[in-house]
Amino acid sequence: MPHDTLNAFCRDNNVSHRGAAQGPLQGLSFAAKDVFDVEGTRTGFGHPAWLETHPPATETAFAVTRLLEAGASLAGRTISDELCYSIAGENPHYGTPTNPRAPDRLPGGSSSGSAAATAGGLVDFALGTDCGGSVRVPASYCGLFGIRPTHGRIPLDGVSRFAPRFDTVGWFARDAAMLQRVGQVLLDGAAGAGFDRMIVLDDAFARADEPVRAALEPGLELIEAQLGAPTHMSLAPDGLDDWLETFRLTQAGEIWASLGEWITQARPVFGKGVGERFAAASKVTPEASTAARIRADAIATELDTRIGESDLLCLPTSPCIAPLRGTASDAVEIDYRRRTMALLCIAGLGGLPQLTIPLGTIDGAPVGLSIMARAGRDIELLDFAAKVFAHI
Amino acid sequence: MPHDTLNAFCRDNNVSHRGAAQGPLQGLSFAAKDVFDVEGTRTGFGHPAWLETHPPATETAFAVTRLLEAGASLAGRTISDELCYSIAGENPHYGTPTNPRAPDRLPGGSSSGSAAATAGGLVDFALGTDCGGSVRVPASYCGLFGIRPTHGRIPLDGVSRFAPRFDTVGWFARDAAMLQRVGQVLLDGAAGAGFDRMIVLDDAFARADEPVRAALEPGLELIEAQLGAPTHMSLAPDGLDDWLETFRLTQAGEIWASLGEWITQARPVFGKGVGERFAAASKVTPEASTAARIRADAIATELDTRIGESDLLCLPTSPCIAPLRGTASDAVEIDYRRRTMALLCIAGLGGLPQLTIPLGTIDGAPVGLSIMARAGRDIELLDFAAKVFAHI
Repeated sequence: MPHDTLNAFCRDNNVSHRGAAQGPLQGLSFAAKDVFDVEGTRTGFGHPAWLETHPPATETAFAVTRLLEAGASLAGRTISDELCYSIAGENPHYGTPTNPRAPDRLPGGSSSGSAAATAGGLVDFALGTDCGGSVRVPASYCGLFGIRPTHGRIPLDGVSRFAPRFDTVGWFARDAAMLQRVGQVLLDGAAGAGFDRMIVLDDAFARADEPVRAALEPGLELIEAQLGAPTHMSLAPDGLDDWLETFRLTQAGEIWASLGEWITQARPVFGKGVGERFAAASKVTPEASTAARIRADAIATELDTRIGESDLLCLPTSPCIAPLRGTASDAVEIDYRRRTMALLCIAGLGGLPQLTIPLGTIDGAPVGLSIMARAGRDIELLDFAAKVFAHI
Repeated sequence: MPHDTLNAFCRDNNVSHRGAAQGPLQGLSFAAKDVFDVEGTRTGFGHPAWLETHPPATETAFAVTRLLEAGASLAGRTISDELCYSIAGENPHYGTPTNPRAPDRLPGGSSSGSAAATAGGLVDFALGTDCGGSVRVPASYCGLFGIRPTHGRIPLDGVSRFAPRFDTVGWFARDAAMLQRVGQVLLDGAAGAGFDRMIVLDDAFARADEPVRAALEPGLELIEAQLGAPTHMSLAPDGLDDWLETFRLTQAGEIWASLGEWITQARPVFGKGVGERFAAASKVTPEASTAARIRADAIATELDTRIGESDLLCLPTSPCIAPLRGTASDAVEIDYRRRTMALLCIAGLGGLPQLTIPLGTIDGAPVGLSIMARAGRDIELLDFAAKVFAHI
């Protein structure tokens, strides 16, 4: 068999639904991560113990309903990392979805199956969620367009609760036009004025591997051709490590508040990495959590002050290509995760929309360039990508 | 939840594969009925007991491999009727897939999930098998184009064995162009001359409900516009009941030869109808089976003599629209099955290619018009449908 087993869809709790007969997405198919409720069926949240201990949903998630009503059909529910607490894309219970663009490498997570299904051509687009990077990372690793919208822009009704301060509903597509088309259904509101200043985030680029920086250069040139010579900026005056730590602690506190009680009672078995992160989250003191939240608020205010309405910020989605399969659970993992989260935490802390564009490959593995903007500028980001990166 | 649960895909043994990066079907997605082997995974043949008692396949089915190599991606394996011995589309173990075009009615079977997945827009096309009507019936009920190719035209390697004398690999699509495009990959050989005589099978039309005949009339007019005034013909001089009985006995004898040993040992629990048919098949004597085979050979010779190279035969795919859900297991079922099989058995006995075109609806439920031709004229049938019925 010369082809990849994609292992994208859930088996225990898969579900397919037909979309409305008429609508702007009529005839398209999509997949939804195993955190989106579908009435009458059980959401698994990436873990068989969660699936077993939770009743069928009584309502379908807002985003799924909106897409079905627009005419798209739900082809299936996709594998997620365990309770979403990973960006690797591994799942010890259900297996690791294949990265169709680099089968020897990880797909990225936690929206791993949605990325695999989209990149493998099983569906036209797919829903994921992005709290700490769970759409942006698999999009970058699998060579997809992906968006993490402004926090709060798309209702989280019917989505498994993880860290509500940062949770967002995002999606994947193979081209910018499809990403935009889905956005026209999921995002309410009209487009405002376009962007007129390109900002290159030097502190973010400095953290990327040199081949990644080189691979993203042509994308920066295309943006420059639209907006003129870029302004260079470093967002975090004291370095992104401070921001990363603030994000990590705030997120861990929220995660334990959402899931600690269930974990303590159900005692689920976790794979390496995920179990350790939950154990660490359980030990975050209320004092540390409060201090982190206060610092997070300050960073959000700072971002709000510094990023103008017409600014388009550019940064690498990930500092590196996808790790090889089987390596993410090694000691290497902690460093890799920290390096990656340092870039991802910016949008999380600011609640900012971030869109990743598949820009090239290194050793055959895809890398993504991100464009980011002020909160609320989702439609403008989608329009910009559809205009400038239509050729990909 | 205002939308249909399609229940198209297998849950226990679903599998997704990425197609080759290049090829004539690049970017398309397909589904395959739960009778197609995929290396390293278990085929279920529509029954959990079969799934449990059979090892993973060591090779991928010919048709699946051919499609993957052409660039199409396998989105999943679809629900089948139990061991394919039904045309209703019900499955008591896995549930009945939804007929997306008429949710209160049966989807038809045995390739029920493949039809539901295609009609519901989950995939671009889907593989089924057709022994006694298992592609033609669900295509007609679900408003799809579907083809049962010439017997032996597409290798059955890696397909669950049912009644080898009649088994074929077929497929579904929402439009004639897609049906043709898949045929260009699955069928070897070049197109011969087109058709120049339209034959309306009066004995077949006489068995259809009057509203079905009326609904198919516009299709006949389109064909007449291409080929001129039709010749009217009745194929079975002694009536189609004799043909039906010949088909039924020959098929039953073959089915018991293929599956009797396993059924006797594994004692699977069957739903109503299917269990009764297997019980009846077990009682077909060698003498009755041999007599039926001899008669079947004579009918095949007769068809071969009477159908010319350039003849296009027209008949209703099914004499009626899909039965309402929950009614097919009643006493009504036997009569319904006999009426339907009387039309379906013609292509079976002759090994002829038959293509069904979704032509209209009655009370909102689809009906199909079939075009049929001499053995080997598959490509010409596909080309004719793509030319004349491109508007559907």
